[in-house]
Amino acid sequence: MSDALAPVLERLQAGVDGAVTRLTELLRIPSISTDPAYRSQTRAAAQWLADDLAAIGFESKVHDTDGQPIVTATTPGPDRNSDGGDAPHILYYGHYDVQPPDPLEEWDTAPFEPTIVDGEHGKRIIARGAVDDKGQLMTFVEAFRAWFDVHGSLPVKTTILLEGEEESGSPSLDPFMVANADLLAADVAVITDTGMWDIDTPAITSMLRGLVYVEVTLHGPTHDLHSGMYGGMAVNPANVLPRILGELRDDRGRIQIPGFYDDVRELTDTLREQWSRLGFDEAAFLAHAGLKTAAGEADREPLERMWSRPTCDVNGIWGGYTGEGAKTIIPARVSAKISCRLVPDQDPQKVYDGLAAFLHERTPPDCHWEIVTHGLSRAVQVPTDSPFLAAALAGLKSVYGRPAVLIGSGGSIPVAGSFQRLLGYDALLVGFGLDDDRIHSPNEKFELRCFEMGMRSQAAMLDNFARVAVSRIC
Amino acid sequence: MSDALAPVLERLQAGVDGAVTRLTELLRIPSISTDPAYRSQTRAAAQWLADDLAAIGFESKVHDTDGQPIVTATTPGPDRNSDGGDAPHILYYGHYDVQPPDPLEEWDTAPFEPTIVDGEHGKRIIARGAVDDKGQLMTFVEAFRAWFDVHGSLPVKTTILLEGEEESGSPSLDPFMVANADLLAADVAVITDTGMWDIDTPAITSMLRGLVYVEVTLHGPTHDLHSGMYGGMAVNPANVLPRILGELRDDRGRIQIPGFYDDVRELTDTLREQWSRLGFDEAAFLAHAGLKTAAGEADREPLERMWSRPTCDVNGIWGGYTGEGAKTIIPARVSAKISCRLVPDQDPQKVYDGLAAFLHERTPPDCHWEIVTHGLSRAVQVPTDSPFLAAALAGLKSVYGRPAVLIGSGGSIPVAGSFQRLLGYDALLVGFGLDDDRIHSPNEKFELRCFEMGMRSQAAMLDNFARVAVSRIC
Repeated sequence: MSDALAPVLERLQAGVDGAVTRLTELLRIPSISTDPAYRSQTRAAAQWLADDLAAIGFESKVHDTDGQPIVTATTPGPDRNSDGGDAPHILYYGHYDVQPPDPLEEWDTAPFEPTIVDGEHGKRIIARGAVDDKGQLMTFVEAFRAWFDVHGSLPVKTTILLEGEEESGSPSLDPFMVANADLLAADVAVITDTGMWDIDTPAITSMLRGLVYVEVTLHGPTHDLHSGMYGGMAVNPANVLPRILGELRDDRGRIQIPGFYDDVRELTDTLREQWSRLGFDEAAFLAHAGLKTAAGEADREPLERMWSRPTCDVNGIWGGYTGEGAKTIIPARVSAKISCRLVPDQDPQKVYDGLAAFLHERTPPDCHWEIVTHGLSRAVQVPTDSPFLAAALAGLKSVYGRPAVLIGSGGSIPVAGSFQRLLGYDALLVGFGLDDDRIHSPNEKFELRCFEMGMRSQAAMLDNFARVAVSRIC
Repeated sequence: MSDALAPVLERLQAGVDGAVTRLTELLRIPSISTDPAYRSQTRAAAQWLADDLAAIGFESKVHDTDGQPIVTATTPGPDRNSDGGDAPHILYYGHYDVQPPDPLEEWDTAPFEPTIVDGEHGKRIIARGAVDDKGQLMTFVEAFRAWFDVHGSLPVKTTILLEGEEESGSPSLDPFMVANADLLAADVAVITDTGMWDIDTPAITSMLRGLVYVEVTLHGPTHDLHSGMYGGMAVNPANVLPRILGELRDDRGRIQIPGFYDDVRELTDTLREQWSRLGFDEAAFLAHAGLKTAAGEADREPLERMWSRPTCDVNGIWGGYTGEGAKTIIPARVSAKISCRLVPDQDPQKVYDGLAAFLHERTPPDCHWEIVTHGLSRAVQVPTDSPFLAAALAGLKSVYGRPAVLIGSGGSIPVAGSFQRLLGYDALLVGFGLDDDRIHSPNEKFELRCFEMGMRSQAAMLDNFARVAVSRIC
């Protein structure tokens, strides 16, 4: 720990109540990005953050986009790091928008009236957005506030990027990055929107799966037919689509899309050993979903299936008569939403092409496919030899008193790929959520212990980033 | 043709416009039986018919049931037939309820605003229920009206039975028949809810398939899961249900339900020969549905597939995320509606048990089935040696100038079996629909030529029924 950090940690400790009050204020704003009815509320959340960052000492701005506003804030750091090398430039990413709170009737308290209750880990705050992502982004905002209060400036050049469309596919983010590449130039991004291993063990997510999401419709007869008249003679898309989707995997759970596994790397022995040491409790994990038996690839370890193997799932299916009682039709068309989670080196376009070929090869006579893409993103693997990763790990260890673990995530955080692809730097995914935080579900919560330790971790990581020497290629 | 018939046919000819106006009025009532929101409208249709039949000269009544009302109307005929034998007693069956009109956006005109347009066979009326069954039941109502107008009474004792639950499985009809066996006593039933061979060739349907209709839900996780977190580990009902439904038939179109074909009779050589003489135009039939290639059992003739072979079709499927865009969930459950068309000697309960066993044998760990039955009915075969059949054939020939053909039907009309089983008499299935009438589909239509020839046929058949001598066993 540097001399600079200790008073910042003290300041954070003394100011916890104020931090909770500010988080509560932000959580009261129903900044639901998927529903246009909340447009003024998303803007209010963006403005609240821009104002708070300006009060801390940043130069902040609310940028209009075609969708929700984007907040940026910058502060110049020193030219030299604490060891005399070129000073690094860190970008912090978070999102102020939240998922819709439905189903409302399943909440114990109102989703936008944050409530503090006692839980197994002490106090927790319950609200939509508590952990995803308002509570998480406020960990770095509060760390910056304390550092400014104590030292009058930050030890590294810092840019903050807060978007309001993460829950609705971030359509404005990539164009904003391209248009504002200078403003967003940095050496590394810190994304605080992920989880810990458990409440005592911090984690950095080093592997994120990519995503191919398609909506497919199999068209057959020109209109719905009477199954009594045409049954046995007319092709029935509601018979055929299930059969084709049923062929997506074999008996051992292996995906049958041509070329699907071509570029999939085998897990390294090192990572396999690290993951096996984590002591993953498969039974407890499945029990959260009311299940006892693991599905998926029979010959793979559980964490491998979730973190480093690609998957393919039907997420929704619909067609024909779905009302009350009986209607004996042969539907003209049936649709499904299908998504594949990708691992590093898989090319989303190649997977999409393979899936399309898989479908087309099985098209029965008189039928045709309509395929709409809802997203193609690559998996992200964070280099494990980065000095910023080492600095973050050191910072986390100093706060928690035990090493942070490198974990994978089954989810996709496309922004991590955007930093690599559009701005040319890597992202560090450091977050303080827990598996049982109920993100996207009723009664979302954030443990106040995670919030406090998160702020301290952000301050400690900042302190360590300040000692990284960067060599930039001009 | 008897002397009595000629003026009735003239009367029908002169009154066509009035008949179309009355049909239009009836079609305006959205008597959708499957949707409780239309309860007052189904009652309005029942009352409209009871009032019309009373105006014609019948004694009519609207009977309350646990479901939709049932209309009956009776008129005493002569004790002796025109040849001096015991006079027959004919019951006419139709249904005033209609299918829901969805999908509304595929209608060219509003489904309950009947519209007359020009088509290849002259004018046609477009509306939900145009042919199924309001237009068809009005063929006998208009024939009776004309006969009453000309002669003051009908030549045979006649009972009319109009139900309002045909499109929702007729749950009240069997109990009503049992409770009102005296009121419904007759020598034969005429059911006007079937089709012609083509617009120039009348037909009597002598073979009707039965039906087993189930709604199945495969339950897996206790709640929808995030596919990023659980994908590759949790069982996904939206992967599994399609695979199981896909196994319902083999590559040759043969249904894989255990015991499904056990009781299926092979077509007799006689019937096979009769059907082959019909010169069925497979290409034209499929073209109505925009298709070119016959599906179903590869080693069976087209008419055999449709009329005398059992089938199994998925009629609807739904589950998971079906809204706009992408949502990456593993749904907790997925459902499907499945129906089997049965042929004579197949036991609906045995088929149901086989289907349930088929599903249960394939249940993955941690999943369970919920199965709801929406109807079990046997196939019906009408005796071909009945004097009423001969009378009906003679009546049809006199109107069309060519013999009517005996055909099968892929559809199920469970009421035909109820007449046999509960009331002890056979049914004659005589109808005036065409294959391309789009029943149960958007833009359902009835050719006005079929409507007019249907009315004339009903009058001519009535005239022939009046000469049948019946010998009743007391």
